Amino acid sequence: MFKRSAILNFTTLYRLGRPFKTGMTTLPVDEEDLRPIDSINKFDCTIDENGLTLTHSLLPHDRVFGLGQTLGALNKRGKVYRLYATDDPVHTPDKECLYGSHPFLIVEGAETFGVFLDYPGEIIIDIGFTQDDLLCIQIGHSDVDIYVFDAQGIRDIVREFLTLTGSPYVPPKWAFGYQQSRWSYPDERSIVEIGKMFRQKGFPCDAIYMDIDYMDDYKVFTINQQRFRDFEGFAASMKRDGFRLVPIIDPAVKVERGYGVCQEGVENGYFCRSIDGGLFVAAVWPGFAYLPDFHNQDTRKWWGGLHKRFIEAGVEGFWNDMNEPSIFYTPNAVNEFYDTVQYMKQNGFDKDGSTPMSNRPEYFEDIVHTGDDGTPVPHNLIHNLYGFDMARATIEGFNEYMPGQRYFLLSRSSCTGTHRIAGIWTGDNMSWWEHLLSHIRMLMSLNMTGFFYCGADIGGFGCNAYAELMIRWMQLGVFSPLCRNHSAMGTRYQEPWAFGHRAFEIMREVIRLRYALLPYTYSEYMRCVRGLVPFISPLFEAMDIEDQFMYGDSIMAAPIYQPNARGRYVTLPSARSVPPATVVSELINCQGQALERQGTKWLLWRCSRYDVRDVEVYEPGVYYIGAELGEMLIFIKEDTLVTLTQPVDYIDQAVCKSLTIIGFVTDKATFTHYEDDGRTLKYREGCFSTLDIVIERDDDDYAIMLSRNEHPDVPIAITEFMFELYDASGQKVCRHVVA
Amino acid sequence: MFKRSAILNFTTLYRLGRPFKTGMTTLPVDEEDLRPIDSINKFDCTIDENGLTLTHSLLPHDRVFGLGQTLGALNKRGKVYRLYATDDPVHTPDKECLYGSHPFLIVEGAETFGVFLDYPGEIIIDIGFTQDDLLCIQIGHSDVDIYVFDAQGIRDIVREFLTLTGSPYVPPKWAFGYQQSRWSYPDERSIVEIGKMFRQKGFPCDAIYMDIDYMDDYKVFTINQQRFRDFEGFAASMKRDGFRLVPIIDPAVKVERGYGVCQEGVENGYFCRSIDGGLFVAAVWPGFAYLPDFHNQDTRKWWGGLHKRFIEAGVEGFWNDMNEPSIFYTPNAVNEFYDTVQYMKQNGFDKDGSTPMSNRPEYFEDIVHTGDDGTPVPHNLIHNLYGFDMARATIEGFNEYMPGQRYFLLSRSSCTGTHRIAGIWTGDNMSWWEHLLSHIRMLMSLNMTGFFYCGADIGGFGCNAYAELMIRWMQLGVFSPLCRNHSAMGTRYQEPWAFGHRAFEIMREVIRLRYALLPYTYSEYMRCVRGLVPFISPLFEAMDIEDQFMYGDSIMAAPIYQPNARGRYVTLPSARSVPPATVVSELINCQGQALERQGTKWLLWRCSRYDVRDVEVYEPGVYYIGAELGEMLIFIKEDTLVTLTQPVDYIDQAVCKSLTIIGFVTDKATFTHYEDDGRTLKYREGCFSTLDIVIERDDDDYAIMLSRNEHPDVPIAITEFMFELYDASGQKVCRHVVA
Repeated sequence: MFKRSAILNFTTLYRLGRPFKTGMTTLPVDEEDLRPIDSINKFDCTIDENGLTLTHSLLPHDRVFGLGQTLGALNKRGKVYRLYATDDPVHTPDKECLYGSHPFLIVEGAETFGVFLDYPGEIIIDIGFTQDDLLCIQIGHSDVDIYVFDAQGIRDIVREFLTLTGSPYVPPKWAFGYQQSRWSYPDERSIVEIGKMFRQKGFPCDAIYMDIDYMDDYKVFTINQQRFRDFEGFAASMKRDGFRLVPIIDPAVKVERGYGVCQEGVENGYFCRSIDGGLFVAAVWPGFAYLPDFHNQDTRKWWGGLHKRFIEAGVEGFWNDMNEPSIFYTPNAVNEFYDTVQYMKQNGFDKDGSTPMSNRPEYFEDIVHTGDDGTPVPHNLIHNLYGFDMARATIEGFNEYMPGQRYFLLSRSSCTGTHRIAGIWTGDNMSWWEHLLSHIRMLMSLNMTGFFYCGADIGGFGCNAYAELMIRWMQLGVFSPLCRNHSAMGTRYQEPWAFGHRAFEIMREVIRLRYALLPYTYSEYMRCVRGLVPFISPLFEAMDIEDQFMYGDSIMAAPIYQPNARGRYVTLPSARSVPPATVVSELINCQGQALERQGTKWLLWRCSRYDVRDVEVYEPGVYYIGAELGEMLIFIKEDTLVTLTQPVDYIDQAVCKSLTIIGFVTDKATFTHYEDDGRTLKYREGCFSTLDIVIERDDDDYAIMLSRNEHPDVPIAITEFMFELYDASGQKVCRHVVA
Repeated sequence: MFKRSAILNFTTLYRLGRPFKTGMTTLPVDEEDLRPIDSINKFDCTIDENGLTLTHSLLPHDRVFGLGQTLGALNKRGKVYRLYATDDPVHTPDKECLYGSHPFLIVEGAETFGVFLDYPGEIIIDIGFTQDDLLCIQIGHSDVDIYVFDAQGIRDIVREFLTLTGSPYVPPKWAFGYQQSRWSYPDERSIVEIGKMFRQKGFPCDAIYMDIDYMDDYKVFTINQQRFRDFEGFAASMKRDGFRLVPIIDPAVKVERGYGVCQEGVENGYFCRSIDGGLFVAAVWPGFAYLPDFHNQDTRKWWGGLHKRFIEAGVEGFWNDMNEPSIFYTPNAVNEFYDTVQYMKQNGFDKDGSTPMSNRPEYFEDIVHTGDDGTPVPHNLIHNLYGFDMARATIEGFNEYMPGQRYFLLSRSSCTGTHRIAGIWTGDNMSWWEHLLSHIRMLMSLNMTGFFYCGADIGGFGCNAYAELMIRWMQLGVFSPLCRNHSAMGTRYQEPWAFGHRAFEIMREVIRLRYALLPYTYSEYMRCVRGLVPFISPLFEAMDIEDQFMYGDSIMAAPIYQPNARGRYVTLPSARSVPPATVVSELINCQGQALERQGTKWLLWRCSRYDVRDVEVYEPGVYYIGAELGEMLIFIKEDTLVTLTQPVDYIDQAVCKSLTIIGFVTDKATFTHYEDDGRTLKYREGCFSTLDIVIERDDDDYAIMLSRNEHPDVPIAITEFMFELYDASGQKVCRHVVA
């Protein structure tokens, strides 16, 4: 029970074999902490030549949560999940693995507990699929650390897990702005043009992405001279206009004589080797390429250093792609293909004769890493660390060239641990309505596994978007910590102005709302990071509701995610009176009207502009609530507060001088406004300021208390407070406080 | 306005050019009926070298329904639909075309009207996708008949459309039973085994399918001798046990010397030709094959005759597959592929170098049909008729070898017109929860376009199913006119006993319910066919609700289609008081509680067994209603009746002697019980019997009136009537009437 550290209260570590040190956890393990695997509770345990199998019986109403970036419902029951980082660009419901591995899950029901598998190879988790009452975890290896969290509630289990694995990543403040991407804005001209459009049209934007076409022949760390004649000048000018550039960095290094990165890597042994002893070669975007051996600290140091030119040009962020790693094909596979075709030529064509070339298992079996001590490490043993180790390598650059500063880093592949050092997005989704729902669910699952800063490509990466889908997705994007619009080559353009004037105006208001909410968002994000509480969370009072979520502690979002909908069903749980495990169907309407009318009420803000309040008070219950295309359904919990300010074009412009506080206060509400410099890591040393807002309902009036706790380096500039307070009848009281 | 026929009251026909006679409509057109295309109302019309373009402006709240077998929501707005029959086995939301072409749509809103395009080639329909306020129909040709239906309500428009295009297909009565399929039960032994399991386990079943492996080398109209040593004896024995065999028939005829079907076809010119004058050759299941030219009447006659052996062995039904037609590749495409590979060998491998082989446009451009008068007809002009013409060919066999009898025919490809002569299924779906919702929506869309007898593969064809998905899909299957469980080679077995005992027992009760409901289902189906009213229809009072549907006039089904759900949201519309075009969000809950409490109430039967009534009365409104895994939510409309009988093992066993009538009667309810011989077409000449059941609420009691209208050849055997009548308080009154 981690007696020595005494930090973990409900955690037991069961060890099998001699697990590899993955870096997924941050707490030191003392020998005394260890329990033998066969003493594991909650599971039946089998160890044989196939590795380790853990099984746990599920009762009919048990639910299972967690697993981060996985497809399917929030309750993960009824599917097989394969944790083996894979670049699969078609996220249909049957797919078992995506880009990341987040082997933390929570069983909630008769017995509630969490389990985390500190293991970087393939894990198969069958949650009631093969056998409906059985949770089965399989690991094809016998060196693994298994942590069991025996706390009672989901929140406590998550806190314990994050205490073990580390505090979530905090990006620079500008990263909470709107971000525009496209595969590709391939040159200076097109990026400048896009930037101008945002500013001219008054659509807030903080970042523009540079996808693979900025490079020379897809050679990583190059910048094409024709397309970017003066990159440094261009980058500086974009930054002056408030745009951060976010270049893509892929791991694969083109095999090319005279290409410095390739040469350095070869000379210094920074690349992965093949089982046969030579360098491992695989085709990715640049054609045949080497894969950096990020498992090795020398490689990481070197790789980090390669970011110098970008960082010196003012670039503060990157996105790492293709780092599962993704492999299109290998020289062997091509030869095999030619042989197959030759065979078919002689024996007749077979439509199923040649199998897909990308990401075949044998590629990964052929890769060998080199440990820091020089010993070879088969890739498959540590496959899921590749993206994490690449992020660690990138950070070497940040640490060297912008020490003490916060950086922006998005990684496609990730594992537990990555959540401390980078944000992630959900990969190559599609312009499908179904993927709005996936986005909603992954926000919750990812937050539960520590990835607070995450999001999905708004509008969808593949396939073609259209006006209504874009608008609804943008509305969901307001509540997505990473709010990035991204789309693939060959698909319809997805910039906010690409869908006609009416759609543009709606989306501009939507994103202005996001900027207006920044004081709330940033305060709550930092509160959650510090408290190790998910920033985005499901309705703990109604865990069957998988299409609404809490954004911080005051706002419940109920995004519309279906075509042509002019409203949606909403469940308003009674946060005070309902025990966490109650099934919502038992809670409400068993007799058609036995609504739980006690407990927390909700203030609905049917929002079409950040500065127009159209509000109504709702009792707990079930409703179908209308929302026109330009309207969002934002629910504010009783006795909580939401803060807003004036939206700006980009976040660096924002000096919050006046704060609007919306409150639905029937008793007492408190909110802690938080500020720091938004750019450095000094907040970790206490360099931040807070402002406590307390409102008490007092007969027919409200008592308002403000108390500042300011760090001298972070003065709070707010001098004006506009209170808009609502009571249970929806009556509004406005107060203007100058302080 | 069809003055001569005087049957169509709201229809105008606009003709462009000299349209091909497709057979989609059944009413004769008089020259006087015709209007020139440029006089078309409702649309702006452009004719140029690209063909015909029709556009109609959509207002924000206009809705568009119809289009039969298409993906997406029930309201078709927000997507592009390409009506060009295509075998695409991955039904992701972005796909624009499936297997059929049903070019009938209804615009509902400020202006309400229907439009039907009697045109058998490609049609592109962009409903607010490219431009959100524009419906745009494009036809790349200028010979087309366009019917505009200017009736006011959806029901009237559908009736007008069906009056024009013909009365829906009526299968034999056994076709309402449960049907079991698999790719494949490849031999006598496995089919016998499956049959035994159904009977031993008391799981009702009426039909077992024979997929492609029953043939010799996929040669159509052969039966493999090794796997079926005595097909006739086997077929007779299965029939004695109450199982209809349904063999698959594919169009492609293997090119093989000595294979009779091939030889006859070649000798008589029954196959499609290539543009270069030779026979068109394409690879399908049997390898290289010829495609019968079903456009030609001699071919159809010949093809029909080929079914003789099956029909004489007692087979009464077939399913036609691959009849879009589906083409794997052609000899030319293979050569091109080899050339591409050769090029790559010399110039470097390119992962995107070779494009998919199946169903390339150039294949279809190469096919030429021969009209009955000997003139060549380019395939693409009539592409969408191929499946329809194949069905017409099949029927030649039924007419010859089982005249006067009803036949069973399922066709994968179809167009308007097919609905008169065959049922369809929705093709190769997947074991995805999303496809349950597709199933629900397609049931409604297909019924609106005349395909009353339709269904989707229960459990999903591709991918692996699991217990909960199977159960929920089976529950939906109760209300699917075609109720077939089918799955693909390589996927998990999907027979009802494949998911454990508990799941089996639940599913058995589910299907028993279907059999118990047969009197209701059959009576309502025949009423709808005779009245040209959709058998399955959306909630006309709440058209935004796309996940509930009426099954006949008394039952509203609210299937559960999400994983782990133990309940769902349900909207109970107020059928009496709400005008059809009211948006549900306006109707309910605008103030959170302004529920429409007047009008039709609903009786919820939370059904886990056909003979156990767990009922409650609900007011109109919005609810979240619990339903455990074994429970279905069946709503019975106020003042309507539902009839049940004892379930049987197969429908031929069913002689309905006792009828249970469930009624939720607050004023007066009527139901017409219908019977015919279930096997012949004599019902068309009035050879059927009816029994009118009328119940009037009379103070605190009910007055029950029964009146028989019996045809001498169809005596109604019912002697016992069990009434279970509920009033608005849920009070139950039972009556036992012997008559």
